[in-house]
Amino acid sequence: MLDADHWFTEFCEEAGSAFSLRIRGRLHEERTPYQHIAIYETTDFGHLMVIDGFVMLSSRDNFLYHEMLTHPVLFTHPHPRRVCIVGGGDCGTLREVLRHPGVESVVLVEIDERVTRLAERYFPELCEANGDPRAEFRFEDGIRWMQAAPPGRLDVIIVDSTDPFGPGEGLFTASFYADCARALGPDGLLVQQSESPLLHQDIIRGMFRALGEGGFRACAPLFFPQPVYPGGWWSAILAGKQAIPGFRVDDAAARPFPTKYYNPDTHRGALAVPGFFAEALADLNSGLGQG
Amino acid sequence: MLDADHWFTEFCEEAGSAFSLRIRGRLHEERTPYQHIAIYETTDFGHLMVIDGFVMLSSRDNFLYHEMLTHPVLFTHPHPRRVCIVGGGDCGTLREVLRHPGVESVVLVEIDERVTRLAERYFPELCEANGDPRAEFRFEDGIRWMQAAPPGRLDVIIVDSTDPFGPGEGLFTASFYADCARALGPDGLLVQQSESPLLHQDIIRGMFRALGEGGFRACAPLFFPQPVYPGGWWSAILAGKQAIPGFRVDDAAARPFPTKYYNPDTHRGALAVPGFFAEALADLNSGLGQG
Repeated sequence: MLDADHWFTEFCEEAGSAFSLRIRGRLHEERTPYQHIAIYETTDFGHLMVIDGFVMLSSRDNFLYHEMLTHPVLFTHPHPRRVCIVGGGDCGTLREVLRHPGVESVVLVEIDERVTRLAERYFPELCEANGDPRAEFRFEDGIRWMQAAPPGRLDVIIVDSTDPFGPGEGLFTASFYADCARALGPDGLLVQQSESPLLHQDIIRGMFRALGEGGFRACAPLFFPQPVYPGGWWSAILAGKQAIPGFRVDDAAARPFPTKYYNPDTHRGALAVPGFFAEALADLNSGLGQG
Repeated sequence: MLDADHWFTEFCEEAGSAFSLRIRGRLHEERTPYQHIAIYETTDFGHLMVIDGFVMLSSRDNFLYHEMLTHPVLFTHPHPRRVCIVGGGDCGTLREVLRHPGVESVVLVEIDERVTRLAERYFPELCEANGDPRAEFRFEDGIRWMQAAPPGRLDVIIVDSTDPFGPGEGLFTASFYADCARALGPDGLLVQQSESPLLHQDIIRGMFRALGEGGFRACAPLFFPQPVYPGGWWSAILAGKQAIPGFRVDDAAARPFPTKYYNPDTHRGALAVPGFFAEALADLNSGLGQG
């Protein structure tokens, strides 16, 4: 029934689950020097980008991920001016960052230029801010870029990468985080997608540990829905070189741009830690309360 | 690859999506006078109950749904003593309600006794409170039971039903809601599962309208994750005959029982309304703010 002509299926081996979207057809497929990229036209979720068999985004629901990877960290830093996005070649994260008038420069460091070229073609709405003079594109290895970054210059780093396997693997290590910490100013914050809170606690535990080893003193999880990812519920980790301040609620409420999911209430909601999650991380002394 | 010997798949026709769980085998299957019930053993989600092809619950993640269908409404009513559960034959909702020491009686009205008998066998942990003297089981039609219920006696009604198709259909109508409103006392609250906030806005709109027609003056959505349901993100509607009061935060924080997901923070988070959802319901004058 779920034949490959009419359905795209992503298997989540470690959870014994699979998620499928009905497709009209495959619009594009290529193997780049880094990965295999496919674009499908679905019947109900718009366009779908798949990298190495894993769903990256759909037209219909990427707003959840992109808004929650950007606005919480940007409304938490006291005055974010210089931002670096590692990965994020589809440009959806870039678009959201550039909505913040106080942001003066954003460098997007994406290893695979083809992701951006295909996004321009199949997700043009995500690329509509690409011509903003504050945006700079670097199609190179984010790990090496961060090693060579001048110290203390960045306010916010957003790691918008694939899963911790393949090209994205090095972006989940203590040495990468140490380079990030060095590149950030004293108030600097990092945020990174961290998989499913229910299905991938081992990955999240590893990230908490590695972020600590890399010099981040504080970590807080963010939770949000993301239907096209395994389990439909996703997370990000917000990490600070110092304690993470409360977010700028008034500025978030008065944001001068449209959002579909993000607002001060959903921001607060994203910070709510369920007991089962706090318990799974209790031995890491993460400081997570159990409500 | 997703052959029926090794995978159970639920199709969500209206969203062009499907969700699959890897199975070791089918433990039970029967056709009752009301519906088709199957129980599977999955590789990673424990036992799985499926009714008419739709996933009802898994051992692994039912705590999300059961906690969020019960504790928010019970910590919102000022003093819930008499509770009615319509549906809920798997007894997970009943177990959570009975955790509240102030609750004096709970009547569970389930049309299909076989659901409960199978839950006792395959989900014994959900049935561990079934012997509580405060619990009464009525295996009959919830619609008729509510028509005949004495007026003004109930504090809380929890509609824990299947989707609004087949046996559950009559539980989403203005006439059923009018019977519920009559059976509730003046502070009475009703809560009902209301499908996916992203995929089923037509159903949710219909529920808001029918609840209003049935005499509920106030409705508020609750949002929570539920991986085994379509899209992995689910909702319930909390409805009041009068304005819905703020929840009893201190009592929720001091709850004398364990929870895995529910706490005052996740309760507050569940009440956060995303802009896209408020917009989809804007013409109903639902009073939902947009944050």
